[in-house]
Amino acid sequence: MRIVVDAMGSDHHPVPDVAGAVAAARLWGDEIILVGREAAIKDELAKHDTAGLPIHVKDAAEVLEMHEHTDAVKRKKDSSIRVGMRLVSSGEADAFVSAGNTAGVLASAIFDLGRIRGIRRPALATIYPVAGSPVLLIDNGATADCKPEYLVQFARMGLAYAENVWGIADPRLGLISNGEEEDKGNMLVRETFAILKESELNFVGNVEPKEVTRGKADVILTDGFTGNVMVKTTEAVASFLGRFLRQELTGGWLNKVALVLLLPGLIGMLPGLLLLLPTLRRLAQRFDYAEYGGALLMGVNGVVVVGHGRSNAKAVKNAIGQARRAMESHVLDVIQASMQVSGE
Amino acid sequence: MRIVVDAMGSDHHPVPDVAGAVAAARLWGDEIILVGREAAIKDELAKHDTAGLPIHVKDAAEVLEMHEHTDAVKRKKDSSIRVGMRLVSSGEADAFVSAGNTAGVLASAIFDLGRIRGIRRPALATIYPVAGSPVLLIDNGATADCKPEYLVQFARMGLAYAENVWGIADPRLGLISNGEEEDKGNMLVRETFAILKESELNFVGNVEPKEVTRGKADVILTDGFTGNVMVKTTEAVASFLGRFLRQELTGGWLNKVALVLLLPGLIGMLPGLLLLLPTLRRLAQRFDYAEYGGALLMGVNGVVVVGHGRSNAKAVKNAIGQARRAMESHVLDVIQASMQVSGE
Repeated sequence: MRIVVDAMGSDHHPVPDVAGAVAAARLWGDEIILVGREAAIKDELAKHDTAGLPIHVKDAAEVLEMHEHTDAVKRKKDSSIRVGMRLVSSGEADAFVSAGNTAGVLASAIFDLGRIRGIRRPALATIYPVAGSPVLLIDNGATADCKPEYLVQFARMGLAYAENVWGIADPRLGLISNGEEEDKGNMLVRETFAILKESELNFVGNVEPKEVTRGKADVILTDGFTGNVMVKTTEAVASFLGRFLRQELTGGWLNKVALVLLLPGLIGMLPGLLLLLPTLRRLAQRFDYAEYGGALLMGVNGVVVVGHGRSNAKAVKNAIGQARRAMESHVLDVIQASMQVSGE
Repeated sequence: MRIVVDAMGSDHHPVPDVAGAVAAARLWGDEIILVGREAAIKDELAKHDTAGLPIHVKDAAEVLEMHEHTDAVKRKKDSSIRVGMRLVSSGEADAFVSAGNTAGVLASAIFDLGRIRGIRRPALATIYPVAGSPVLLIDNGATADCKPEYLVQFARMGLAYAENVWGIADPRLGLISNGEEEDKGNMLVRETFAILKESELNFVGNVEPKEVTRGKADVILTDGFTGNVMVKTTEAVASFLGRFLRQELTGGWLNKVALVLLLPGLIGMLPGLLLLLPTLRRLAQRFDYAEYGGALLMGVNGVVVVGHGRSNAKAVKNAIGQARRAMESHVLDVIQASMQVSGE
């Protein structure tokens, strides 16, 4: 497999992007093509031991910044995103991974790869981590304004992914809504519900966020606006709780005295705490977006994974891992087949 | 003040509804009219010491169940919700509080109280607790399908409330979106942004959930569908974290051994933990919806507070407190004035 990695993607590019690519090449042995400003990439690569690793560099003179819009994507034909995407469309590489401007990657994928035949709009599929076992959320922000027929296609793509990549037999589909009953939701949700109900899909109906966290569905379906707000709310609440706890516990002299009084007890607890370490680590991992890599862009003619702008090296490495798994599972064929079965 | 309380509202009615009403009458001395099945209410009241409290009972033969729809609201003219709402419209009472079927309360408010002149759609304003200081979220589910002009009216109502009821000078308005930039959002958000930007309101632009939790705005504006999903996601994530922590810490024999080993340490920590109690209590209160009472229905000709279906007595009492504060601040005049200033 040859995977193109956008070296100019993350907020702190090229540092985490290059480090993640090196880690992935070492771990899985795939060929990695780092695309971006050649000199900067080579300087960064020099900090790593890359002897024997199949890492190449492809120069791209321009960089699409995080705040730039679709017109800049059109204009900047030599940006790392567009050069990388063309390596996939020409068949020189199998997949593209970027922690850069999501809207830019999306626009470039549509320009340079095109949509899969029959697909009306692309969607970003991402892991929603706040449930007993992983749940696939689609769409996490590719298509903010949806029609029912787009959502039904997202559902088919997401279910095909859950079945073929995750290996879930007959995955359950839930439609995000503000109530479980059939008449709840906005107009888009009510119209989509009516179509899904009549389909052959394993549709469990509307799901509210609390049902999502209780694992009522394997794939949760929503428009790109709502999905993005939901995922970002989840991140914001988890991060706020941590901050709030820290501030409350360390603020005020009474709490400082209390913490000092806790110390002897804490020392006495050391053996027990050491035994708890694996659990605490599992907990931290659960809410560490870096564990999940990124979101898979579904509906375009190529495997494209978009990482978080705040990606660190681990997140970039895991985004590359996600692209590998998608290719190993022939995700493009799977999506194409899901569209043909449905006759759409 | 005379406040009508729906005794048949909460999931466990009339127990928490009556207990909350008794507590409110004792605390604030306002006249309370409990509406619902007279015999059931009187049986419940008999369990409390109500000597000298200004509590009355108004019989209502029917109950609108949680799953019932707008047609049932029309049909059940003798339901506690409709009888209670008519006490407000006739001037026999000043406010209506219910922990019942939100859609039912909304429909009844529109039938029996009517909208404030000039208001296109009602909105539910609620406290969004996950921020440094309270933030007012509007709309939490009254109007799922919105137009930009509805959102602009919600903004004016919410800002008027924050200024006059909460006493925030020149409150800041944020529009919930999937990105801060002006071109982010769905079509509704982009069109609303354009109107707000040209208005005289203190509009700080689009806000993502993480900016909400960091206190970038005092009032956050969104359509009723997105707002409801956002609030419910917040509740679901906080509740999942608690569950997950409990399960992880008590699951598996290694953790059980660890917890036993922690015991001597915990005993040594008692003095410190006692000092931390106020902080831990503050933390629990922060995420206890019962502290906030309910959501204020804005845009109708009367003070209406809708509580959580899961309300306990404290939540009902605090919902009554919220109705009191709204009346003390003359919230209806404030909303009416905000519409006149804007010339809409």
